[in-house]
Amino acid sequence: MMTELGIVRRKVKRAERTAVEALSRYGVATVHEAMGRIGLMKPYMRPIYPGALVSGTAVTVLLHPGDNWMMHVAAEQIEPGDIVVAAITADCADGYFGDLLATSFMARGAKGLIIDAGVRDVKALTEMGFPVWSKCVSAKGTVKATLGSVNVPVVCAGAAVNPGDAIVADDDGVVVVPAETASKTAEAAKAREANEDDKRLKLAAGVLGLDMYKMREPLEQAGLKYVD
Amino acid sequence: MMTELGIVRRKVKRAERTAVEALSRYGVATVHEAMGRIGLMKPYMRPIYPGALVSGTAVTVLLHPGDNWMMHVAAEQIEPGDIVVAAITADCADGYFGDLLATSFMARGAKGLIIDAGVRDVKALTEMGFPVWSKCVSAKGTVKATLGSVNVPVVCAGAAVNPGDAIVADDDGVVVVPAETASKTAEAAKAREANEDDKRLKLAAGVLGLDMYKMREPLEQAGLKYVD
Amino acid sequence: MMTELGIVRRKVKRAERTAVEALSRYGVATVHEAMGRIGLMKPYMRPIYPGALVSGTAVTVLLHPGDNWMMHVAAEQIEPGDIVVAAITADCADGYFGDLLATSFMARGAKGLIIDAGVRDVKALTEMGFPVWSKCVSAKGTVKATLGSVNVPVVCAGAAVNPGDAIVADDDGVVVVPAETASKTAEAAKAREANEDDKRLKLAAGVLGLDMYKMREPLEQAGLKYVD
Amino acid sequence: MMTELGIVRRKVKRAERTAVEALSRYGVATVHEAMGRIGLMKPYMRPIYPGALVSGTAVTVLLHPGDNWMMHVAAEQIEPGDIVVAAITADCADGYFGDLLATSFMARGAKGLIIDAGVRDVKALTEMGFPVWSKCVSAKGTVKATLGSVNVPVVCAGAAVNPGDAIVADDDGVVVVPAETASKTAEAAKAREANEDDKRLKLAAGVLGLDMYKMREPLEQAGLKYVD
Amino acid sequence: MMTELGIVRRKVKRAERTAVEALSRYGVATVHEAMGRIGLMKPYMRPIYPGALVSGTAVTVLLHPGDNWMMHVAAEQIEPGDIVVAAITADCADGYFGDLLATSFMARGAKGLIIDAGVRDVKALTEMGFPVWSKCVSAKGTVKATLGSVNVPVVCAGAAVNPGDAIVADDDGVVVVPAETASKTAEAAKAREANEDDKRLKLAAGVLGLDMYKMREPLEQAGLKYVD
Amino acid sequence: MMTELGIVRRKVKRAERTAVEALSRYGVATVHEAMGRIGLMKPYMRPIYPGALVSGTAVTVLLHPGDNWMMHVAAEQIEPGDIVVAAITADCADGYFGDLLATSFMARGAKGLIIDAGVRDVKALTEMGFPVWSKCVSAKGTVKATLGSVNVPVVCAGAAVNPGDAIVADDDGVVVVPAETASKTAEAAKAREANEDDKRLKLAAGVLGLDMYKMREPLEQAGLKYVD
Repeated sequence: MMTELGIVRRKVKRAERTAVEALSRYGVATVHEAMGRIGLMKPYMRPIYPGALVSGTAVTVLLHPGDNWMMHVAAEQIEPGDIVVAAITADCADGYFGDLLATSFMARGAKGLIIDAGVRDVKALTEMGFPVWSKCVSAKGTVKATLGSVNVPVVCAGAAVNPGDAIVADDDGVVVVPAETASKTAEAAKAREANEDDKRLKLAAGVLGLDMYKMREPLEQAGLKYVD
Repeated sequence: MMTELGIVRRKVKRAERTAVEALSRYGVATVHEAMGRIGLMKPYMRPIYPGALVSGTAVTVLLHPGDNWMMHVAAEQIEPGDIVVAAITADCADGYFGDLLATSFMARGAKGLIIDAGVRDVKALTEMGFPVWSKCVSAKGTVKATLGSVNVPVVCAGAAVNPGDAIVADDDGVVVVPAETASKTAEAAKAREANEDDKRLKLAAGVLGLDMYKMREPLEQAGLKYVD
Repeated sequence: MMTELGIVRRKVKRAERTAVEALSRYGVATVHEAMGRIGLMKPYMRPIYPGALVSGTAVTVLLHPGDNWMMHVAAEQIEPGDIVVAAITADCADGYFGDLLATSFMARGAKGLIIDAGVRDVKALTEMGFPVWSKCVSAKGTVKATLGSVNVPVVCAGAAVNPGDAIVADDDGVVVVPAETASKTAEAAKAREANEDDKRLKLAAGVLGLDMYKMREPLEQAGLKYVD
Repeated sequence: MMTELGIVRRKVKRAERTAVEALSRYGVATVHEAMGRIGLMKPYMRPIYPGALVSGTAVTVLLHPGDNWMMHVAAEQIEPGDIVVAAITADCADGYFGDLLATSFMARGAKGLIIDAGVRDVKALTEMGFPVWSKCVSAKGTVKATLGSVNVPVVCAGAAVNPGDAIVADDDGVVVVPAETASKTAEAAKAREANEDDKRLKLAAGVLGLDMYKMREPLEQAGLKYVD
Repeated sequence: MMTELGIVRRKVKRAERTAVEALSRYGVATVHEAMGRIGLMKPYMRPIYPGALVSGTAVTVLLHPGDNWMMHVAAEQIEPGDIVVAAITADCADGYFGDLLATSFMARGAKGLIIDAGVRDVKALTEMGFPVWSKCVSAKGTVKATLGSVNVPVVCAGAAVNPGDAIVADDDGVVVVPAETASKTAEAAKAREANEDDKRLKLAAGVLGLDMYKMREPLEQAGLKYVD
Repeated sequence: MMTELGIVRRKVKRAERTAVEALSRYGVATVHEAMGRIGLMKPYMRPIYPGALVSGTAVTVLLHPGDNWMMHVAAEQIEPGDIVVAAITADCADGYFGDLLATSFMARGAKGLIIDAGVRDVKALTEMGFPVWSKCVSAKGTVKATLGSVNVPVVCAGAAVNPGDAIVADDDGVVVVPAETASKTAEAAKAREANEDDKRLKLAAGVLGLDMYKMREPLEQAGLKYVD
């Protein structure tokens, strides 16, 4: 599957639904760790309102700067449980998406939008409860004149995304889980979280990470010196 | 009317009040579209608290980096319904404005501040309900030593602003409407919004933008290909 | 006391507790002015949630990019009332700190974290009420492989910080008060704030800063011209 | 004259030729000072090769992000001695201009290009000796699909530019001189430079600016203290 | 082939040598256009000295922030004609590469380095004639403590790169050509360039792009208006 | 010694001259490594022309945004062999320094300027051979109205600098060596460089860093896997 312009791929192998739903139980930080610390989008991707946590399968869109034509093409490809992931062929801060498109996406069953560009009507989107993670907020309108693609591989905010990949997003950012590893990653996240509960209790009781993680010896071997 | 330093213009032809008030009914995105997609400030201009929507007429201020002297000069030129638009002669993130100046501006009838620099005392400003759109938040204090101007043409956050222009600001950003086109723009915004309500209902019912906007034929002519 | 790597200083002369507590009564803007307008961190340092106001004494940490090992070493050096100030040897946006470390820091009596890098688990941190001022939010995990230092002089977000210095942080940013001047600064802040209350009343009553600060004559001498 | 899209203004009142040529004798820094320290574009505008110094009259172009169609429209409006000033309706780093357009612009008599976006073919442009000041270098190609305007007022890199204004550009940046003040500015620049030659000789001989500018007394009055 | 950490892939299917060499005859701008305007890295990637034009096949490296250990692992995988493409798991400006590594890479036959981070010893690298395209120049040293990978798919400066892909870099930036389309792209670039020579002659003779590209009619249809 | 405004310190204990001169034999990268990888300014500090390598003792200046008054005060404190290090109390890109001040600084024996702000007249400075490392180039003029300080501790581009510290600057950036460790650092740099010559010869002969640094075993222990 190549990245090219002027293409809409209709048949997409989506990450397994149960795995995607399982991922939504863990935060982005935990899933990212479970992935081996890869797959994270750049930290400039921020939610338009705090508190949202979603997971879904990627419908990818590749757009031209200042042009949101393909967003309408993408709407038709959305299946319930999808998250639209929009990449631009070059850096652009225009407002590609507002409450009308959100109304359409919600009607199709989309769970959110990840866009490496700007978004507008954020007050309305917040009231509608349609979560968006974006590079910025901008009222700048776009035209509908140049073709891009839907459901081709894209790079969005520094992360490679294939159509059908699992996406998890919350207040900490956005992480991409390849469709074929979604189940394995959900299990690893579960194991990691179970492990964290125990640690949390110990730390709250005053146990130091130095002791809990047995770091004193390796720190000494690395040459750490205590002075007064 | 030229941009020069050391000048205070007292008589300003302000945009017609009814037009300015009408603009406050529509969001920045709608007004910006009604303007023909021009007049928007850069998206780095953000409100210090969410949810504010104001419109007013511009009292412009041109300031030196690190110097807020002219803010006090501007206060005297404020008439009820004005919004102060502050530009700096070079990029500066200092905190030019805090709760004391806000108290004075409010007493004069100002509806808000747009500043291409920093602002401080944001907790107090939020409690006072005085909305500010700024480049950043900064506690950095300024001096009062160098002249700027009040009510000269300025460039603020990438937008040209003349004294008396209509300003609309909300969570999506800030747009400038030249005084002489405020009425025409308010009408265009009204027409645009009426039009949007109908679209919103259709999209919510599952109609695709592809069909509602009759995009399928032009997309095909542009060469869009569907693959499986 | 030199900045060097691989060192943990255990004995730190902290700013006097009563002075540090006194500073918490004034905002960052007031303390920064009382300092003579120095000591402020860069305005990119933002709180993860609004409304927090803390003061405390600095436990400094110097970390390697992508490596939070020394955070665990720092935890042991925390005394009740401390604020951890974390600097990185080069710009890095990784998420060095999350809810587990926050649990440990809180158990030790820390009042907050100032970090010139990223932080994660911000929803949990907000619920825990552990305030953090950071360069960004990022879920990006770090390793534990390379030594840094604890309680050495650091530069954090453009401000020089010595261990034991008083730190004040609120919605306007973060200011550093050298330990030896904390008392004097608290007094200056108090005097400044008393002074501001009176000004606030006058300005609210419609008195102009131009008159209250007697600016008309110096403005005229500087050459300010009023035109119609 | 309003900023609007879809317009080409053919008749432009250009700054007087002799004044524009006179301005080319002084650097941007001197002209900017002679202007009263206004009119400068943001410092991110850099020349693609060092050493060029040009002055000319502005043909302005307003372009859509990712779309250089109006560059071809602008070419026809170029008269010998003009400099094209290109603004984009929103931030964009695409490469709007390369060696083919430069060939056309040179054939029309253009002396250079100022563009608040990207440029490409910089090696060829350097060999052709066609100077460009731009926000960045980028090979990213653009489309030709959406109307902008030629010879309307624009904001380019933070400076307001009207068609016909005098532009001066060198290694220090780009300054805009309104057409109606070009002669006066050229004279002020000349006076300033004459004044500087004398100062330069004194400073080279070891005279201090403190003495030459008689700063010691005002510094003392401002409270400067010398300590050992 | 997945992106994971701790892996070195020894067998890489490289783009066909004749195609890669052919690509070096055209600049980055031409190849990028021949690709359909995709595959370009972000414009912040700049050469450390002007005038270099190279093409080669990618050896990819994925590194941890502040850690260049895998650069040494990559050296062994270099074959004559390769270009090393280094990505970091998070933004980092450290100086990962200097004259010692360049000496080793040159001895292995590498034609250059593309790195989404910093580089140092730029004077020596310039004298050695080893071209580097990087995000910045930085003397900041790195450690050798954490595993990354060699010859896995990476995202470098916004572009997806697979091991073996063809890379073309010059003063305009860096473009990535998938191995399987290198021949087709070289042919398209050749056709494009032939086409450009003819256009260049016409434009130099004063023919306008408006006429040469037959733009007058579509511009009129789009609504462009000429005014005086 | 405190950072405060309105102070000029006349007596400064400078780093020992022979140590400072010795440091000039090594590049910034080597000195930074010899320092234990600390003391480097941020990589945005760039030379105005390539190829300069200087070392000297710091005369520090702390300036207000948009105000270069203290540069003239600093000139008097320059002794032959000094490098002026200029910090601003908040981010500012104005052009604080041009050919007149450079003439004065050269007459006093200064070897260069390091400034965390803008510089202008770069063509003249290049012709004069007066090296400057700065955040940017800007023609923006400054005023002379507000006090700063000379020879107080400053933070310049992220590095703490005390008056008298040794400064080394070249194409790779700027490093600060505390006065009291200059001799020790010069020796460490010398040892490091001797060591590098031998490595360079081996690497040029095709020996891999993997073998020369004996990395194969630790890489294997860390879990690195080779696949085909």
